[in-house]
Amino acid sequence: MHLTSLLPILRWGRDYRRETLASDAIAALIITMMMIPQSLAYALLAGLPPQLGLYASMLPLLLYALVGSSGALSVGPFAISSIMTATALSAAFPESAPSDYLMGAVVLALSSGMMLLAFGVMRLGFLSNFLSFPVITGFISASALVIAASQFGNLTGLEVSGANLLTLLRDLGLQLPGFNGHTLALGTAAVLALYFLPRALKSLASRLDASVFWAETLSKATPILVMCLSAWVVAQFDLQQVAVVGIIPQGLPQLQLPDINDLNWSSERWQGLLSSAALISLIGYVSALSVAQSFAAKRRQRINPNQEAVGLGLANLASGVSGAFPISASMSRSAVSFKAGAQTPAAGAFAALLVGFSCLFLTPFLYYVPIASLAAMILVAVISLVDVAAIKRAWGYNRSDFSALALTALLTLVQGVELGLVSGVLLSITLYLYRSSNPHVAVIGKIPGTEHFRNRLRHQVELSDKIIGVRIDASLYFANARFFEDEVNSLVARYPQARHMVLQCSSISDIDTSALESLRSVDQHLRGAGMQFHLSEVKGPVMDQLLRSDFIETMSGKMFVSHYLAWEALS
Amino acid sequence: MHLTSLLPILRWGRDYRRETLASDAIAALIITMMMIPQSLAYALLAGLPPQLGLYASMLPLLLYALVGSSGALSVGPFAISSIMTATALSAAFPESAPSDYLMGAVVLALSSGMMLLAFGVMRLGFLSNFLSFPVITGFISASALVIAASQFGNLTGLEVSGANLLTLLRDLGLQLPGFNGHTLALGTAAVLALYFLPRALKSLASRLDASVFWAETLSKATPILVMCLSAWVVAQFDLQQVAVVGIIPQGLPQLQLPDINDLNWSSERWQGLLSSAALISLIGYVSALSVAQSFAAKRRQRINPNQEAVGLGLANLASGVSGAFPISASMSRSAVSFKAGAQTPAAGAFAALLVGFSCLFLTPFLYYVPIASLAAMILVAVISLVDVAAIKRAWGYNRSDFSALALTALLTLVQGVELGLVSGVLLSITLYLYRSSNPHVAVIGKIPGTEHFRNRLRHQVELSDKIIGVRIDASLYFANARFFEDEVNSLVARYPQARHMVLQCSSISDIDTSALESLRSVDQHLRGAGMQFHLSEVKGPVMDQLLRSDFIETMSGKMFVSHYLAWEALS
Repeated sequence: MHLTSLLPILRWGRDYRRETLASDAIAALIITMMMIPQSLAYALLAGLPPQLGLYASMLPLLLYALVGSSGALSVGPFAISSIMTATALSAAFPESAPSDYLMGAVVLALSSGMMLLAFGVMRLGFLSNFLSFPVITGFISASALVIAASQFGNLTGLEVSGANLLTLLRDLGLQLPGFNGHTLALGTAAVLALYFLPRALKSLASRLDASVFWAETLSKATPILVMCLSAWVVAQFDLQQVAVVGIIPQGLPQLQLPDINDLNWSSERWQGLLSSAALISLIGYVSALSVAQSFAAKRRQRINPNQEAVGLGLANLASGVSGAFPISASMSRSAVSFKAGAQTPAAGAFAALLVGFSCLFLTPFLYYVPIASLAAMILVAVISLVDVAAIKRAWGYNRSDFSALALTALLTLVQGVELGLVSGVLLSITLYLYRSSNPHVAVIGKIPGTEHFRNRLRHQVELSDKIIGVRIDASLYFANARFFEDEVNSLVARYPQARHMVLQCSSISDIDTSALESLRSVDQHLRGAGMQFHLSEVKGPVMDQLLRSDFIETMSGKMFVSHYLAWEALS
Repeated sequence: MHLTSLLPILRWGRDYRRETLASDAIAALIITMMMIPQSLAYALLAGLPPQLGLYASMLPLLLYALVGSSGALSVGPFAISSIMTATALSAAFPESAPSDYLMGAVVLALSSGMMLLAFGVMRLGFLSNFLSFPVITGFISASALVIAASQFGNLTGLEVSGANLLTLLRDLGLQLPGFNGHTLALGTAAVLALYFLPRALKSLASRLDASVFWAETLSKATPILVMCLSAWVVAQFDLQQVAVVGIIPQGLPQLQLPDINDLNWSSERWQGLLSSAALISLIGYVSALSVAQSFAAKRRQRINPNQEAVGLGLANLASGVSGAFPISASMSRSAVSFKAGAQTPAAGAFAALLVGFSCLFLTPFLYYVPIASLAAMILVAVISLVDVAAIKRAWGYNRSDFSALALTALLTLVQGVELGLVSGVLLSITLYLYRSSNPHVAVIGKIPGTEHFRNRLRHQVELSDKIIGVRIDASLYFANARFFEDEVNSLVARYPQARHMVLQCSSISDIDTSALESLRSVDQHLRGAGMQFHLSEVKGPVMDQLLRSDFIETMSGKMFVSHYLAWEALS
């Protein structure tokens, strides 16, 4: 029982049938067609040789298949992880040798892997919850724009560099006059094809009376079609000025661990790389988890967040051992994989085998693939990450959340991905603490003819001169305990006739030590003012808490099961 | 109206009568008797010349009387602020000239004053709420022990130095063989007198049939009696080896602002001093506010926290202008002042005039006051700050809060006051966020024969195969939104027969953007699994929030006023 939860393959592998195999295999074929061009492109996005993208799409998927629990999740290179890797590496190695740069990527992958593994083993998955939805939305949308801007150089044949939108656009503006016509034409054609061809192919297939399945498959083959076609154009017309992928070493990656003693890096560089690895693994984990959860729910399955952290951790370790870079799961590929009917993590393992086959036999065919067509793929993929609808919803729903979104996005755009993310998290925690330190407090009165008590400002209620009924809509804890005391004191000053105060506790789910001291001091203040302090409708768990102290014994008033009983007894 | 809230003196000054004057004046006399020895002692504690304590007890009290609102609060030197000042100054000026050290104290007072003023004007008083009760208790108790340890040197005639308990005790141990017998005898006698004399005097007075008032007054005069008596002993027997206060310049302080251009301090030193000033003002503010609030409540008055920040800010600015050091309010003096019948802030102003009178005419009499008797006063005063009862209560009530208390106390003891305080605040925020990210979730069922729904684990309830009833005991926000999603997913997996999920929202007081997205995704997941998602008992303010989005329109299920109605409709 325990072993199957550590190795989900023991569970789904036992019931593995021919039909499952068939649907997993077909899904694997479709994923591989997307994965080969995407992984080449995302390796370039990370500033690394294209074959590393392929290496990151083999062993990691096999390991994830052993310990991961999501059938649909397509583990492998991910655009946001790649741009974060590029940012971290260019900060750590501003002018180093390329070999250092490659080693930096491996170190990032290995340390992300170890962090995620530790996350999962120590059950710290909950930490990822502190990335709020507005912060993630702002961060991913802004990162997508930075990624898109970073690809304009490849689309126009220019060498554009920069870590944020401003520097990228400035560099692009300076170099623009030197653009390359052939590259631009190929790149534009690729963007248009990737954008319109899927729909065209689908409607063509449906006109030809093909089944829905084949129509879908054909439309998913667009990236590999565009890749092959553009490579053919470059080779056929001998377009020498168009940058191409070039020689990709044939064969599988050599597995090895770097020798840390060989890396004469300063402690500052290590610190920078490790904190980048923490952010990369956090973002990768959160996005993979949300994708996995949404697909699992559709099949009434459950994802164990800590188990997923272990799976992604091992996948990143495998990527590092393969000499590649940090990975996560691609949202677009996962959606395709789910639609194509992937049932178990075996689908990913089959895709890994197909990528391995390509590495062994097909790399010569990749020589002429133009960088511009890979850039077009990145551009089209990331634009869908800009979640305009979610940004609009946040604006309409909650301005304070929107401000966290806007700050995260703004800082990500103008200062780069890491500062944007960290500031967003800190701001959203601060805003939450601020909000919860000012909870809603209502003076309640009796709805005539009933036993119900409601806010006197929202309803027509009966009030008593002698009794102040109060409801606080929050758990009491240190940040709002003194606010609560202050509210009570102001009520006592406002109703000088009152002899009793009854606190309705139906919304209080927790009372910490500071709040207990506040209750004590409220009780003493009221006693000093010749009043009694009562509690009504205390919930079971809160009552258990209070009984661990002597507060109930020593308080001036009583406990009432319902607010109505308090009203009756004290009137 | 607005002006009287800015200058409370306009309110209480208008009704000022002869009887109020009488009680304020008597209270002032009693406070002054405590204040003169205490202010000398607390100046020495801060590592500064004793007269600065007197200077800090004049102008600041006059200014507080204009803008402060608490009658009983005894503004002036405060033990904790003094030890924090000493820590900050010895960190900033490890080997500087004494003039720099004096200037550092002035800068600390001025910057604390400005920070508190900004706090009050910008209504940031709520920030002080993030000092939780366990953190304050741990911090003040541990600081009191550090202060006590720092006074053993003065009590034994040794020069002991160190910023934390370990270094202080080690230094004391090394020097102990060189202790001075006369000093130790005087110091011990003073400690015993301060501890036992008040009770002895009180019982003596009551035997002599004196009124309660005179008995109290006599017992409060103990410090000044001890001071005079010990000075007489030193002068009479010519105890030359006993360190004494020495020459105190006669007259009032010269008011002046330092010229910042004259201070050639490094930016690091400035940074250190300003962050110390922030901590000093925060602690001073929190302790003064809690004292003021507890006395105000006893008279059914209300303290405006932001107004108090302004009052303390001006008092600290005045202390800086007087050439002194950061101040706050003394808990012990305030309690005495309240008992002695101080009605308005005028009591403090009268005390300031009496201190001024002493500065003009009585300073020669302070020459022979032994440092050891002042150290004895500090020792006796701070020992009462070690709140053993509160520490025990926190242990019994809540282990997580107790751990914050213990960490704060431990770090304060072994690493010094500043690190202890900052770590305590960060730990208590982290623990709170952790707790609130794992709220209590209950599956609820119907109590047979009623319309009430309760936790199925705590009560005998009816359940339905088709309906899952869930209650979550917390507001939904980003840190628990995914936890909530995960709980729902696991329930759906556990009850495969169910067709409806009803979320009872009676404990939900807030739903932020992340939580709204989680509700949307829960709704989609349930829809995907062929189920409907309903809400029951949504509170007014939460309903207002939800109506700002399209969630209610688009959700798969319905809203029910009560959980019972949902049960009836869906069964």
